[in-house]
Amino acid sequence: MQFRRALGTFATGVTIITARSADGEPVGVTANSFSSVSLEPPLVLWSLAKTALSLAVFQGAEYFAIHILAAEQQDLSNRFASRGENKFANLNVKQGLGDTPLLECCSARMQCKTVHQYEGGDHIIFVGEVVELATSEAPPLVFQAGKYSLAARKADETPLIPTGNSEFTEDFLGYLLWRAHFQFHAELRKQESLGEFSDQEFLLLNTLFYNNWRTVEGLCKGTFHEYNRDHAEGAISTLLNKGLIDQRVGKDGRELYGVNEVGKEKALGLLAAAKSTEAVFLQKLGLWEGVTLKNLLKGFIEETNPGLPHPWESHEGES
Amino acid sequence: MQFRRALGTFATGVTIITARSADGEPVGVTANSFSSVSLEPPLVLWSLAKTALSLAVFQGAEYFAIHILAAEQQDLSNRFASRGENKFANLNVKQGLGDTPLLECCSARMQCKTVHQYEGGDHIIFVGEVVELATSEAPPLVFQAGKYSLAARKADETPLIPTGNSEFTEDFLGYLLWRAHFQFHAELRKQESLGEFSDQEFLLLNTLFYNNWRTVEGLCKGTFHEYNRDHAEGAISTLLNKGLIDQRVGKDGRELYGVNEVGKEKALGLLAAAKSTEAVFLQKLGLWEGVTLKNLLKGFIEETNPGLPHPWESHEGES
Repeated sequence: MQFRRALGTFATGVTIITARSADGEPVGVTANSFSSVSLEPPLVLWSLAKTALSLAVFQGAEYFAIHILAAEQQDLSNRFASRGENKFANLNVKQGLGDTPLLECCSARMQCKTVHQYEGGDHIIFVGEVVELATSEAPPLVFQAGKYSLAARKADETPLIPTGNSEFTEDFLGYLLWRAHFQFHAELRKQESLGEFSDQEFLLLNTLFYNNWRTVEGLCKGTFHEYNRDHAEGAISTLLNKGLIDQRVGKDGRELYGVNEVGKEKALGLLAAAKSTEAVFLQKLGLWEGVTLKNLLKGFIEETNPGLPHPWESHEGES
Repeated sequence: MQFRRALGTFATGVTIITARSADGEPVGVTANSFSSVSLEPPLVLWSLAKTALSLAVFQGAEYFAIHILAAEQQDLSNRFASRGENKFANLNVKQGLGDTPLLECCSARMQCKTVHQYEGGDHIIFVGEVVELATSEAPPLVFQAGKYSLAARKADETPLIPTGNSEFTEDFLGYLLWRAHFQFHAELRKQESLGEFSDQEFLLLNTLFYNNWRTVEGLCKGTFHEYNRDHAEGAISTLLNKGLIDQRVGKDGRELYGVNEVGKEKALGLLAAAKSTEAVFLQKLGLWEGVTLKNLLKGFIEETNPGLPHPWESHEGES
């Protein structure tokens, strides 16, 4: 239906709105029809279908509570969007004004006094005055085009460099992925105690750190070097020369490679550096943006995965 | 103010709402207080401050038009959010129902007949029945926490691989950047006509393709190999061996490297492959997600740039 599709282009947050009936029953519904109305007095509104089971309760309630959901509260959103079952089962519920049930862990929560109920076609528009407020740092859940989403601040419109080159610009995804990866790795390399190491060596060392004594074949698979076995063998011989890994012969006569104590210490140093680099970079980018970037990279990796194994995954027939 | 901050956690789209006064003047305001109300009949609402200069026009207008803005319409949003000036100057405006001014290039546009005007504190709530609709594929603009944003669908919650390893998981940004980059490059490499090449060779070839005859120093800078000059020299000698670049002596006696005709053909092949890989991957990810991913990577690169030059930028003192 075109009207629904048009409405879907308008992104919204997701809220759960709760109230308590005169005989003490808690009710709650998921709604994305929330909107701010007024600053003085602080008014907000939302709409409820006239067919909703909880309509009478909201019409009779002096207070209601609006919970703006956080990114990880998708399940809660689904629970309160469905009919019938006991929506509050096993939830940690507090009592608000007028004994309104309050949920936890939201991005924001507003306790409201009902001030208007207006006609709105097949819905009733509830206008409430916000009398109690709580906010948190949790990145909020977003709903757009019928799907749960996350939002992140737009990047500065100024290009990184002025370029007249329309063929292969910095808007190119391959370039952006490479450069973001490169900057991360460059920051890691700055930690002087770590010395020189390539992406391949880093990956190989970590792979062995989590899953030691592997064949060249297994390592090629795990570090994706089946695409370029020379690179894998180059990294293996570099790590052998640096004294970070050792070589031995396995039961079936095949050569196995494993990280030694020096290598383990180096791997731990790299991991610590990687974690602190991540923390610094995510702070520069902003918490909400960081969550969204990771989310999108996961989606990208999922959608474009040609069937690669995980590097830390164990492979058959080794060690 | 805490109320504003709480409201900001609820993401919204951005709309421009227009109408025409009885004496023919067009008015328009930016609003994020849009909300859907009813499906049968199709009703939507928005709120306007009682102090707005255009209040009387909207109160008297039989029709108004809601434009849900697209990601690139941030400037238009700013223009209609400011007071006074002639907001419609130089815009391509069409006439809608009741001569309502219609803007172009939005994610969606709804022409509405005013059906209710309700009291809402320091605002008036306008409820309109949608009588004409238009939608487009343009990714919509999002507003969150006081900033223009973009939203993208949340990735599947199922982990890429089941892992009990809490130390260094696939939630780690360094891993996600590397793997996304790797999958992009792996897809490129699949194009058999391109043969084997490393990231370094790809970058070096492209750098020379856009800015030929460079010194090793210039190339190290441009391809960020000042971080590892051995790698840059290795890539240069590989490309020389493959007959893709040539060497000559510059005026000041320094060695210069430049891509030859064979190399240029190879570079063009790589660029075409890179573009088709980008197109395929962005389609898999989805248009809106693709726009958001690029946006976030740009922000990430900007925020974490240690002062690197652009690889295609020209450097002083060369050729």
